[in-house]
Parts: sequence; C-alpha cells; structure tokens
Amino acid sequence: MFMTTLLSQGTEEQQAQWLNRSWHMDGVLGTYAQTELGHGTFVRGLETRADYDPITQEFILNTPTQSSYKWWPGGLGNTANVAIVLAQLYVKGKHYGLQSFVVRIRDERTHEPLTGVDVGDIGPRLGGNGVNNGFLGLRDVRIPRNQMLMKNAQVLNDGTFVQGRPPLLLYGTMVYVRVITLKDVLFGLLQAATIATRYSVVRRQSRINSDQPEVSVLDHITQQAKILPQIARGVSYRLVSDWLWRFYEDVLRQLEDESTAGRNSLPELHALSCCLKAVASDEASEGVDLLRKSCGGHGFLSSANFDSIYGLTAAAYTYEGEYTVLLLQTARFLVRQYVDSLKRKVLPSSVSYLRDTSRLVWGKNLAANCVRALEISAMEQVRQAWQTQKTHQSSKVSAEMASNLAGRQLTSAAIAHAHAFFTRNALEQVEALRKKGDLSPNVSLVLSQLVELFVIDTFLRQSGCVLRWNNGITGTQLRFVERRFEELLAKLRPNAVALVDGFDFHDRVLGSTLGCHDGRVYERLMEEARRNPVNQEPVNSSFHNHLLPMMRGKL
Amino acid sequence: MFMTTLLSQGTEEQQAQWLNRSWHMDGVLGTYAQTELGHGTFVRGLETRADYDPITQEFILNTPTQSSYKWWPGGLGNTANVAIVLAQLYVKGKHYGLQSFVVRIRDERTHEPLTGVDVGDIGPRLGGNGVNNGFLGLRDVRIPRNQMLMKNAQVLNDGTFVQGRPPLLLYGTMVYVRVITLKDVLFGLLQAATIATRYSVVRRQSRINSDQPEVSVLDHITQQAKILPQIARGVSYRLVSDWLWRFYEDVLRQLEDESTAGRNSLPELHALSCCLKAVASDEASEGVDLLRKSCGGHGFLSSANFDSIYGLTAAAYTYEGEYTVLLLQTARFLVRQYVDSLKRKVLPSSVSYLRDTSRLVWGKNLAANCVRALEISAMEQVRQAWQTQKTHQSSKVSAEMASNLAGRQLTSAAIAHAHAFFTRNALEQVEALRKKGDLSPNVSLVLSQLVELFVIDTFLRQSGCVLRWNNGITGTQLRFVERRFEELLAKLRPNAVALVDGFDFHDRVLGSTLGCHDGRVYERLMEEARRNPVNQEPVNSSFHNHLLPMMRGKL
Repeated sequence: MFMTTLLSQGTEEQQAQWLNRSWHMDGVLGTYAQTELGHGTFVRGLETRADYDPITQEFILNTPTQSSYKWWPGGLGNTANVAIVLAQLYVKGKHYGLQSFVVRIRDERTHEPLTGVDVGDIGPRLGGNGVNNGFLGLRDVRIPRNQMLMKNAQVLNDGTFVQGRPPLLLYGTMVYVRVITLKDVLFGLLQAATIATRYSVVRRQSRINSDQPEVSVLDHITQQAKILPQIARGVSYRLVSDWLWRFYEDVLRQLEDESTAGRNSLPELHALSCCLKAVASDEASEGVDLLRKSCGGHGFLSSANFDSIYGLTAAAYTYEGEYTVLLLQTARFLVRQYVDSLKRKVLPSSVSYLRDTSRLVWGKNLAANCVRALEISAMEQVRQAWQTQKTHQSSKVSAEMASNLAGRQLTSAAIAHAHAFFTRNALEQVEALRKKGDLSPNVSLVLSQLVELFVIDTFLRQSGCVLRWNNGITGTQLRFVERRFEELLAKLRPNAVALVDGFDFHDRVLGSTLGCHDGRVYERLMEEARRNPVNQEPVNSSFHNHLLPMMRGKL
Repeated sequence: MFMTTLLSQGTEEQQAQWLNRSWHMDGVLGTYAQTELGHGTFVRGLETRADYDPITQEFILNTPTQSSYKWWPGGLGNTANVAIVLAQLYVKGKHYGLQSFVVRIRDERTHEPLTGVDVGDIGPRLGGNGVNNGFLGLRDVRIPRNQMLMKNAQVLNDGTFVQGRPPLLLYGTMVYVRVITLKDVLFGLLQAATIATRYSVVRRQSRINSDQPEVSVLDHITQQAKILPQIARGVSYRLVSDWLWRFYEDVLRQLEDESTAGRNSLPELHALSCCLKAVASDEASEGVDLLRKSCGGHGFLSSANFDSIYGLTAAAYTYEGEYTVLLLQTARFLVRQYVDSLKRKVLPSSVSYLRDTSRLVWGKNLAANCVRALEISAMEQVRQAWQTQKTHQSSKVSAEMASNLAGRQLTSAAIAHAHAFFTRNALEQVEALRKKGDLSPNVSLVLSQLVELFVIDTFLRQSGCVLRWNNGITGTQLRFVERRFEELLAKLRPNAVALVDGFDFHDRVLGSTLGCHDGRVYERLMEEARRNPVNQEPVNSSFHNHLLPMMRGKL
C-alpha cells in the first residue's frame, strides 16, 4: 500500500525520493496509515490533521483526540519507520480535505520512535498475528512541504492550494485490492478443502453396512455434501477471478489511453468487484469453518490449521471495504441500472439481464435453468429495493433515510446479483476454456462437473430467494435438481483426492497435521502434541503452585 | 463426567471409595476418558482393552495402537490423577463389550505419571485452551478387580461375567449434557450480543442525512438486522431450554418411579435434545460470528473477546454428540413417528403435527402463520426423507445404505423439526408466563416482540424450505412478514441497550474492550493495546535480529 500510494499520488520527484529506497529496504520501511481508532469506512470523518506553516514551509501533524489515533495499519506496530498518513489538510485555518503525507516515525538508524510519535502494536487478533498491526499517535510532528504527496493536489510555498484533476485511477487501486482479495479467500477455501478431503479419506468412522468395517468419512453422503461443494466453489471463484482480472487490466489500459470506454466501464467494474469480494469472502470463510467442522474434534485443534486459515479468510470480510458497505455500493449501481432499463437504455453486459423480464422457461440444461432463475431473482430483488426506496421516500423521509430504510432489500439485491454473476460467468469460463482446446477430455469433464455442482449448490442455498421470485418452479423440478446434486457428489467422490492433490499446495503451506500429502494423520497429531511445551516436564508447575495447596486445603 | 459416571455406573461401595474423595479433591482429581485418537462417534469401535487376570484378580489395561490413545478428555493433560477409562473387556480372550474402569494415572503425592502411563496435553485449540485436554496411553497398567464400575455388569473373582439390566438412565445423562449445552451456547450468544449492542451504540459511523453528524451504527437498519435477531434468538432459546429442563426432570422422576410414562417419553426427550442441541449450537456460533463481524475491524481484536466466545460456542457443535450424527438420530425418530402417523397412531406431543395434513391457512396472527408453515415444511421434509429411503431400498441397496443415501433429506428433516419446535415452544412459553401473571405489562410486551422477531426471523431464514412446501404463500404475504420484521427492529431499537443490560453479564464475564457497561470503548482498546508485551520496549528485538541485517544486506 505504501508503494502503491506513492505511485498513484506521488510526483516523479517524490517517487524518486522514496520508491527506490522503499523497494530495497534502504532505510525506508513503509506502511499506509488511514484508518483511525474511531473512524473506518467513513473516510471523510478522519480526525488526524496537517496544518501548513508557511514560515517554516512545513506541515505539522497531529492526532488531536484518542479516537484519531491511527489504528490497524499492517507492519506499523514495530516494523515500519515511515508512514503515509492520511490527514485533513488545513492552510491558515482553512480546510482543504484529505491529503496524504509521508511521515518518518522511527529513526532510520536506531529505530527509536521520533519525538512526538507514539507507536505500538494493537494486540492479538483472530488471525494474521504476524502482520504486526499498529497504532500511531502524532503530536506536533513537522515534515517538510515536499512530503505531502502532490500528484493530484499541491500546496505551494506560500500556502496556496492547487487542486488537480480528480484521480480516476484511485478507483483502480481499490478494484485491484478487491480482485486480489477474491483470490486470497479462494485459496484459503481450497487449502481448507484440501485438508478436510485428505483427513476425511484417512479417517474411518461408523459403518454403513453393519457387517462391514467402518468406512472413510467421505463415503457418507452427508460428508460429501459438506466438502465437495467447497471444492467446486473454490474452483469456480478461481475461474471468475481470472476473468475479473482480465477485465480490470482491460479497463486500466483503456484509462491509461484516456479512452471513454475505460471511463464508461469503471462503474461496472467497481460494482462487480465490490459485491464479488463481499460475497466471496463471506462464503469462503463460512466454507472454511464448515470444512473445519467436517473434521470433528480434530479440526478444532490448532495443529489442524483451520483456525489460522479461518482467521485470514474471515478478516477479508472486513478489510478493504466492509461487507455491508460494499454491498450497498453495488446496490446503488444496480438500482441506477434498473432505472436505466426502465428507460430502455442499453446496460453493461454484467447487468443486461435486468432488462430481461421474461419468465423462467425450464429447459433440459439444468445449470442454465439455475442461472436464469438466479438472474430473475436478482432482477426482482433489485426492483423490490428500488420500490422500497420509493415507498419510503413518498412517506416524507429524506432520500438518504429512505435508502437506509431499504438497506436490507439493497444488500439482498447485491448478494443476488453476485450469485447470478458468479454462476453465469463460471459456466462461461469453462465453456471458453473448452473451446480454446486447452483442456484434456477428462479434465474438461471434471471441471464441468465442479462448475455445475457450484451452480446447483448456489441455486439450492438461495432457494428462498429463487422460489420467491420464480413461482413457476415445481416440486418435481426441485427434486430433479437435488437428485443431480447428489449424482454429482457421487461422480466427484472418486476424484476428490486427485482434485485436491492437483491444487498442489505444499505441506508447509497447509501447515496441517490433518492435511498432509502422505495421509499420516495420527502420527502427526501425536508428534505435534508431544512438542507442546507443557509436555516437556512430567509434572506441570501448576501442580505445586495451585493443585497441591488446594488439595491440602481440601476446598 | 467423572462423578456422574461413578453415580450412574458405580456400586455403592465404589461410590463410597471414590466420590467423596473426588468431591473434596482429596487425592482424587478425576477425568472421563472415552474418545480415542482414531475413534469418536462410533463408540463400539474403541480399541483400548482391559484383560482380566483371574490369578491376580486384576485388569490389565492397554492402548495397543497409536489410534487407541485416549484423546480429548478435559483436565487429562496435566491436572487429573485418576481417569475413568472406557475399554473393551476381555476375559480369557472372550469379548464382553465396553466397560468403565477407574485407573490411577499419576501418583497421588508426587503427581508423576505412573509406570506404563503416557500422558500429556494435546496442544492449542480454537477455544477453551484452559481446559487442559489430554492424551493417555496405557501399557500393561494393572488395577484391582473392584475398579471396574459394576453397577450394571460384573466380573466375579473367577472371571465369570454377569450382565445386569441395561442402564436406561444412561440416556438420561446424555440428555442432561445436551440441555446444559443448549444453555451454554445461548449464554455465549447473549454475551456476544451484549458486546455488539453496546459497541454499536458507542461507535458512530457514516451519516444517514448528509447535513447531520455520523450516527450510531445501530441506527443503520442493516446493523439492527444483524444484532437484534440474535438477542431474540438467545432469549427464545432460553425459554425453550427452561421448558426442556422441566421435561427432563419429569421424565427422570418417572423413570425413578419405574413408571411406563417415563419409559415412553424417553425416545421423544432424546430426539428433542439431539436436534435442539445440534441446531442451537450451530446457529448460536453462527450468530456469535455475525456479531463479531458487525463490530468491523475492532471485533477482530482478541481484546473484544468474540474469538474466545466463538471458540467455546463452536466447540459445542462437535462435543457431546456431533452435529450431523445428532440430527440423524432425531431423523430416525421422526421417520418412525411418521410411519406411525400413517397407521393413525397417537404421536408424542412434540411431533403430533406430523399427523396434521391440512394446508396452511393464513390468518391474522403472523407468528402463528410462520410456525404452522414451519411445521408443514418439517412434516413434508420427514415424508420426503422417508420416501427417499424407500426409493433407494427398492433399488436393491441395503437398508443401511439407503439410509446413508438419504442422509441429506434426513438431516434436513431434523433441522426443520427443530425450527418448528423452537418457534412453537417459545411462543407457548411466553404465553404461559403471561398467563401466570409473572410479567409486568412492559416486560411482557418486549418479550413478546422478541419471540415474534425470533419466529419471523426463523421463517425468513428458512424461506427456501418454507416456500417449497407451502406453495400457497403469496408475495404479498411475504412482504407483510418482512415489513413486520422491520417494524419489530424499529420497536426494539430503543430498548436494545436496556435489554442487554438486563442480561446482567458482569464486565469481567464479558472480558471485552468493546462491551463494557460504561461504554468506554476507545479508552479500553488503547489501554489494552498498551499492555501488549511487544510494546514494553520501544525498539523490538526483531529490529536488531532481523530487520537491520536485512537492510544492511539490501535484499
């Protein structure tokens, strides 16, 4: 983030001054400090301020309240020695909005915090404890004028403020981070699926036929139904994330060429990246947790490593755009597009289904039926959100309050859109790969099964929404979809281990006693338990310090 | 568990020998060792064995394989010095099934593990790390004959095995543990809800009207929709768990009086306790996690304490009966009852709705409509599970395999039954309290709102299942339910803080920087961060050990 911000907001001179040293860790260990103890999503509410002093030509940085302490930046705790600090700019008492400042916080040589700098680690977290997230208080910390990043806005020597053109590419950085996040969470999901699959084959539990021995847990259909859809989801997310990456690159190129196509695609790209990141991080972390639970008690052990994978995946629900906030951003886009559709305007391709008011025609292609049903649901949810907003507005509340009151309908619309898009796009990507001839017939078959399972699983999980808006779907059709779901489980079961082996996660990456390639589950559990420091002494000190006095005292 | 097992399986002499000493911690620190490294749910598969030696009149205990190591018992790691060990009994090579044995594992005075005993802690876990769960290997450990628990079966001096009557009350203990678990998880849920509610009032984020300051997060309807239904769920679970406790006590009393009523009620009680524990632990831990996420980044900090509450609540999904296993037990009961209903038999009251084949009549009482729709769904899910089993059986697989193949339908049926029961019973309990006149009008009103919210929330969350089996429900009716849901959020919002204050969790119990009674969130976050050991030295040792060499080497 430090370097990305320098690139997008720094002048060439500023980049020359900081980028190279940062890249080579030459006295510059950077972090990006935006969020504050009391302020996150609502960026305009940040309290940290930078006052320009035209006499010394310096900015004076302050976090005037406790709630304005910077809080969360990664690496800030005890590693970084320079921070890009987002602060409210004031010149001669006049406010010029948020700007970015490069602030040295620790001495380059001694690493001691500089005068006026109060820095530390914010404490243990659910996951990612190696990230060293920190807090930062600033008290009259002075930096030279040229340490405000000035590509898009400048403060001249005398304090004159010059606003440049609004930075379109800022949008781009946010999209970039969300595409990366989508990839991160799907990898987490596939790692957890690898561990659970391998364990579920080694672990034998309960007989199916009473005259035979206990079977692999994965032979129980209830276990297949927990694990295989997660593999299908991870693979499908991967296909969609690759497509999204290409879309992002296309738009970026167009923006750099200053083409209007790029400018026109930005809102669609932004809306897609918001809801896909939100829904994927939510469902991936839910999936990781289900996979943990599918491993019974042993999944609960830290040595299984689900807790660490869960911590990282769950964090993605919040960072770089909180779940509900992102959904509301997508929803606003969808409602605008829906209004456009009523005016018969041409819509961007990812939302063109909003114009299609035809009812569901149940054809032979099950996956296609499911996608179409999800699209109809999404369209109806968008319509309902729009109507709810209108109804509230007509009842004399402000447009903003109406939008708050329609919050549930708006977020549901964005979620429904994400499901419709994920499923349609995943099917299209398999088809494209197949047509390109990149896949062997066997791989093509299994990949198709996985994506079909993902589509059907999404349809069934969303059946409340789907049935509400597709009254025509019959019980027979639903039974047919469910039967196909179970058929796919049976077809994929024999390939489960080969599939997760194919993801090629190294044992060290998985870091799990349950999920290693060689299947030596019980040996590793035992070895890991023996390594526990508590076990290094036959009698724990708690016996002499606590138990013995209690037993003597006969509580 | 140590003492409960002594009570239910020990003779009077054995109780005299062990109970009093255990209760007073007089040289006896007990634990109960059943689960093994390779064996959990399928108890008959346990490998630990006890061979009777008629010459010395001793049992010789062994864990003959790695997978037979006892694994998970609480307090076993370094606290307990005596264990009740579940083992396969062999006399003169003949197998007599599972029996319980009292085995001293550590010296009473020195606490050193005894000869042949290999004991330790199984390592860190997702939650409950204070529980000191352990492993136990036994190699030719000899115990006197009178340390097999002999209330229900005996081994005489010469090795003669005498089987007593099967212990009906064992069932009772399992039910007891599940009722307790239900209470544990609902307390976890309400604790998390208390923290999230208090934080959501203190935390201000985003404006609703652009000319006004940022509002409390709880003023956003999306936040209300995350938090208030969890409070409603916790309170409703509480009402149902109190009823279940009374039912349990009634049955227990009847069993002690050897009445047939008790014997007849056991299967119903058992089936109820299984699915209620399973569904409540699943939904409570999901709720705790949602509450954590509702607190944004700060909810992710360990100092918020959601991670520890989640760890304990999530553990309940697995311990004392794994989720899917319990659901399948309830499902088998439901299918049997359904078959009885086809024969026009009278059914136990909790499943009497299985006989009611009338369609949903949408009346004025919204909550009653929702409950009835959930019952119809449950009934149809049970019917579908039964039919799926029959279909598979007729296709030439064994009854057991048919049951495995119907696993998804069976578990869905048990979940639907739990929802139908939770909602109907919660409504009935409020009504009973109201009729008893125990409630002030205001408390009665708020309690009714909470339970109605719980019922409607359950209905909406299950809408896939509900709409599938209640074709008659119209879009207008659904909109009506949703509007009532939002109305209830608005009605409960002003009482939210008073409600969670009413749960009366002490700040020390909550242990959360975000959830204290006085609302000093940011101060506590800062104080807690400053306490972090990493912050005690201005320059962390990692700077000299790692960063400096790297920077010098200019990687």
